[in-house]
Amino acid sequence: MRLTCAEARRLAERVMEALGHDAADAALIADHLMDCELRGLAYGGLARAISIAERIARTGDRRTPIRITHETPVSAHLDGGDHIGYLVAHRATRLVIEKAEASGIAIVGARNTWYTGMLSYFAEMAAARGLVSIIASNTSPWVAPYGGTEGRLGTNPICFAFPGIGDPVIWDIGTSAIIHAEATLAKRLGQELPPGVAYDPEGRPTRDPAAALAGAFATWGGPKGSGLALVVQLLGTLAGSPAQPPELEDFGFLIIALRPDLMGPEADFRANVSAYAEAVRGTRPVEGGGPVRMPFDRSRALREERRRGDVIEVPDVLVAQLETVAARVPA
Amino acid sequence: MRLTCAEARRLAERVMEALGHDAADAALIADHLMDCELRGLAYGGLARAISIAERIARTGDRRTPIRITHETPVSAHLDGGDHIGYLVAHRATRLVIEKAEASGIAIVGARNTWYTGMLSYFAEMAAARGLVSIIASNTSPWVAPYGGTEGRLGTNPICFAFPGIGDPVIWDIGTSAIIHAEATLAKRLGQELPPGVAYDPEGRPTRDPAAALAGAFATWGGPKGSGLALVVQLLGTLAGSPAQPPELEDFGFLIIALRPDLMGPEADFRANVSAYAEAVRGTRPVEGGGPVRMPFDRSRALREERRRGDVIEVPDVLVAQLETVAARVPA
Repeated sequence: MRLTCAEARRLAERVMEALGHDAADAALIADHLMDCELRGLAYGGLARAISIAERIARTGDRRTPIRITHETPVSAHLDGGDHIGYLVAHRATRLVIEKAEASGIAIVGARNTWYTGMLSYFAEMAAARGLVSIIASNTSPWVAPYGGTEGRLGTNPICFAFPGIGDPVIWDIGTSAIIHAEATLAKRLGQELPPGVAYDPEGRPTRDPAAALAGAFATWGGPKGSGLALVVQLLGTLAGSPAQPPELEDFGFLIIALRPDLMGPEADFRANVSAYAEAVRGTRPVEGGGPVRMPFDRSRALREERRRGDVIEVPDVLVAQLETVAARVPA
Repeated sequence: MRLTCAEARRLAERVMEALGHDAADAALIADHLMDCELRGLAYGGLARAISIAERIARTGDRRTPIRITHETPVSAHLDGGDHIGYLVAHRATRLVIEKAEASGIAIVGARNTWYTGMLSYFAEMAAARGLVSIIASNTSPWVAPYGGTEGRLGTNPICFAFPGIGDPVIWDIGTSAIIHAEATLAKRLGQELPPGVAYDPEGRPTRDPAAALAGAFATWGGPKGSGLALVVQLLGTLAGSPAQPPELEDFGFLIIALRPDLMGPEADFRANVSAYAEAVRGTRPVEGGGPVRMPFDRSRALREERRRGDVIEVPDVLVAQLETVAARVPA
């Protein structure tokens, strides 16, 4: 089914309101889901709203207000109160921006949250204020470390972002060979996983998404990539998350933000970032290859194109599921 | 030739003194080179002293005192005065430790330096004080971004470290498929590079170390690894290094350090880090595989073993070269 951006956004908002969020929180969550849809990450878009409904149905609504548990001029620690990460990370990001603007550098961590979404969403918030950011988020141990076949690591995204002139440079990756939402979507659609990305509960390689979800995903990037995933897990631990959080509970989110003028003139830094991005795009390509891309280039271009076209394609079955949830009266 | 640790260290110190360093600086550089030897990274050990002599012979001695160009309670920026990175990064690390201990979190950047060595050396300094650290260092553009065949990136190490109970967890990697010192050593020894790690100056894949040094190395880890290398380059730019530094000149070094008690009780964090490391080591291995290792485990064990054995094996030809440099009268 084809929806306009406004229709898709309103549908996401109605689902979030039916799940007990007030209008402001529902709008924030919908904005994040829409950003995923626009950037071509369908598994993190409207489809994710169903996973959110399923998670809340399983655990019950246990939300308590997000609160600051510890604070200094350069830091804050939040208890997310079992709110979804889109909201907790948004609060953490606003807070770290405020503190970094005042002090130069700041760190905010949060625990007791789940589904933090795309870290680049928060990195764009910081970059829009001229701040460099480093962001990490751990998850339940769905991923095996290099050389192992049992979950010890989350899918563990990490993100760095640098303000430029105009567009920032953003690098935002997951450290697993496949992300949870992709496996969930493959299971929903009855598709196989690519080879080499998962183990079943007995530690045998598998392409069955259900077996992978009961077993463990592999990490990306061999021993080095596995090490980066470990780093993210420990950054989550620093934020107060257990090293191995229960299923979709008590994830950690950590953001460091800083003003580039701590090191030198901000305008020079921004100009250098953008000039460097252009120099990378201008690299002589490998034989037969297309132009070299900067991270986020494709995603940003797709978002612009979809905004202009004002059409979001959503499978009919998904729209029907979303309408069913949206029609519920909040408890 | 077999040297005791004390003999190898004294030889390195004599070379550094002959290159115009005072006794304290020579001892600091020798300590770093010895740590590489002990940890099995021979290309960064005594062999590196020859590369240092060659660099200074090429550019002349242009050193000016390391100085602070900008400072706040949570930050400092250093001009390294063309001193070697082992010294500049050591100064930056001492400074960031002092500031993080006082303020909770701090950042120190340095430009105008070269050869920063193993970032883990500085991470161990911060971890010994109970601090979490994030460290990055850019280099001359010896590495092609993913999809390209011309140098735009340095070999660009990045490191994260977390204090535990006893040993810290340290992850320290280079983001290129091969590091500069490995290619230099292969050229010195007349060996071929592994396939797939380098391009010649015309952009063709090559295994000749001389062609690779004139062309570009590949990045590690496909598009994701290339993106991480870009991040390190921009962290170096943040530290004031040009985005593409001249050959072995004006590298950047950046370190962020923070007290874990900004987020919660330090003792809990340390215990969680060490318990998590044990949980990872206890992961069921892949069929036929050995135990899962944490990053730095092998390196740390080798260092202990070599310290106990008190023997460093150094090729005779290298000892002869080092003695020749050490016999020089400093200019």
